[in-house]
Amino acid sequence: MSAGKVVLALDGMGGDHAPDVVVEGANIARERYPGTTYLLFGDPARLKPLVDRRKGLAQVLEIVPAEDVVTADDKPSLAVRRRRKSSMWLAVQAATEGRADSVVSAGNTGALLAISMFSMRMVTGAHRPALASFLPTRRGEVVMLDLGANVECDAGNLAEFAVMGSVFAQTLLGLDTPRVGVLNVGSEELKGHEEVRQAAAWLRHEGSPINFHGFVEGNDIGTGVVDVVVTDGFTGNVALKAIEGTAKLYSSFVRDTFRTSTFAKIGYLFAAGALKKFQKRVDPRRYNGGVFLGLDGICVKSHGGTDALGFAYAIGVANDLVRYEYKNKLIDGLAKLHQVTSTTEPTPSALQASGGAE
Amino acid sequence: MSAGKVVLALDGMGGDHAPDVVVEGANIARERYPGTTYLLFGDPARLKPLVDRRKGLAQVLEIVPAEDVVTADDKPSLAVRRRRKSSMWLAVQAATEGRADSVVSAGNTGALLAISMFSMRMVTGAHRPALASFLPTRRGEVVMLDLGANVECDAGNLAEFAVMGSVFAQTLLGLDTPRVGVLNVGSEELKGHEEVRQAAAWLRHEGSPINFHGFVEGNDIGTGVVDVVVTDGFTGNVALKAIEGTAKLYSSFVRDTFRTSTFAKIGYLFAAGALKKFQKRVDPRRYNGGVFLGLDGICVKSHGGTDALGFAYAIGVANDLVRYEYKNKLIDGLAKLHQVTSTTEPTPSALQASGGAE
Repeated sequence: MSAGKVVLALDGMGGDHAPDVVVEGANIARERYPGTTYLLFGDPARLKPLVDRRKGLAQVLEIVPAEDVVTADDKPSLAVRRRRKSSMWLAVQAATEGRADSVVSAGNTGALLAISMFSMRMVTGAHRPALASFLPTRRGEVVMLDLGANVECDAGNLAEFAVMGSVFAQTLLGLDTPRVGVLNVGSEELKGHEEVRQAAAWLRHEGSPINFHGFVEGNDIGTGVVDVVVTDGFTGNVALKAIEGTAKLYSSFVRDTFRTSTFAKIGYLFAAGALKKFQKRVDPRRYNGGVFLGLDGICVKSHGGTDALGFAYAIGVANDLVRYEYKNKLIDGLAKLHQVTSTTEPTPSALQASGGAE
Repeated sequence: MSAGKVVLALDGMGGDHAPDVVVEGANIARERYPGTTYLLFGDPARLKPLVDRRKGLAQVLEIVPAEDVVTADDKPSLAVRRRRKSSMWLAVQAATEGRADSVVSAGNTGALLAISMFSMRMVTGAHRPALASFLPTRRGEVVMLDLGANVECDAGNLAEFAVMGSVFAQTLLGLDTPRVGVLNVGSEELKGHEEVRQAAAWLRHEGSPINFHGFVEGNDIGTGVVDVVVTDGFTGNVALKAIEGTAKLYSSFVRDTFRTSTFAKIGYLFAAGALKKFQKRVDPRRYNGGVFLGLDGICVKSHGGTDALGFAYAIGVANDLVRYEYKNKLIDGLAKLHQVTSTTEPTPSALQASGGAE
């Protein structure tokens, strides 16, 4: 654990319900993470009353004026060129230049990624960033990446994502050797396209820095058979949103179920407590806090529509990544991976013709 | 509607619970589809007692001896070379040579695809087959393809899949102009990789034979915003299995919920009827009956673990595709598509650099 105090830069103006949820999120986090202080970027006229209203918050939080904001509609390229006085830009800058240890924003995802890449650059050994997040499983939680930072990934990118996800799970889930799976259309070595087969060949090779489980399929994401699921940003984004959509659909089916008859309505009265536990178990706020891994800095993306509890959770993720020295562990892991990839010939299995799905 | 009688070839030995579910499935279908008759391929010693036990079934069903079976572990290439006396091979052959109008099998998916491609070949205008199936949505059902026949697809494949899916939805859902969406990581024209952007450019072009909605995201699969979702077999297979896994996870969460307390258990007693309706609404058997589209013949794949009701549903799919002249409509649609693709320059939007996800 890092000995010093942790300083987090917060984008005060990013997200659908900013600045209110950002300030209240910091207020919730203040009690959870003693010793952590905050730089809050944004419009002082809007931020100061919100901070002053919360007793004790001003002692751990400093407002840093930012006169511009990145909007939800800003194209990433425009945000990089034109929003240099925005709360997002200045918050990322603070984390890049060492005035803060990490940045948390609920703003425009594409803009946050572009600004962070431009400002922080990649960490030694990483070539592309990946967006990682937690998803619920039968046994607990699973880390999945990339959720959409890169729509096209080669085998090297996937192998690096596996290391990033493994270190992330070590840091946040407290696992010594997280089991890592690569998403594919079947579990056999010969399935899938060349990128996944070559990545798997490296990851299972002697000297690989991770505990490689092998290929997993879409239905394995929710079973907890692995702690980390690795895929390209196209597939990951589609799968994540498909899972979210299915979760919503099922929740609506369950709600409809209890409206179908008088008996069911009475049943609901008895089961309401248990059903609330069900809702809590699948509460999306618990799975808030995506992180851009692979940058030379720590950038946590809170969901744009989050409430204060979700934002506080995202702050917790940033706090843990700093305290448990995620970045140093990542640089170590990537160096070990590149010893494997630079000295290992592509394996025959990775070069064979690709098979269809089961 | 086709005037003549429909003859369906059934793989009597394919699937986890064959031949029992195949025979009982045919028996259920017999009442639903008068005028349809069956050729049942497999081991007569096992099939005949099952058929004879069901009154009236022998009048519409003929057992055709097949001495071999394709096993669940057979590699597709081996099945094509070595299983030419199997029930699957002979059933596909009957549909290819016109002794049957369509084939239904619950056997090994990869083997069924390989044998069907080898035997039936592609229909005029189609270059790759796609596995299509129905998924539940808030409003009803959506057709999704490709679910795993091809792990790599180019823009032309995706555009053809769009036409296949559209004709499939017309035929089975009775829609005049199904809304078709291409799966992507965002809804803007510039998002995603080149394949999806070029496919979309063709599909929205003047003369396109389909009602193109544009890009959809993973969470749109379950909302019913489109009737057909088009994607490559890698993404489609992962998304399908992720959706199935999430559905299972939520069902288990709901079950757990009603075990958490005495109150919840009492609530269950009252709500049991409604909860059974919920289970029925998400019953995977209703979404049984994947079809390999694009072949010069009709090949319906029932889920390997299906029960008789699911197999009867798959028979219904085959029956409708034959009666409502799916194949002729598909040839028409593909011809119109290729007029667009052969005369249209790649659009500038399809050539621009790809953007990340939102």
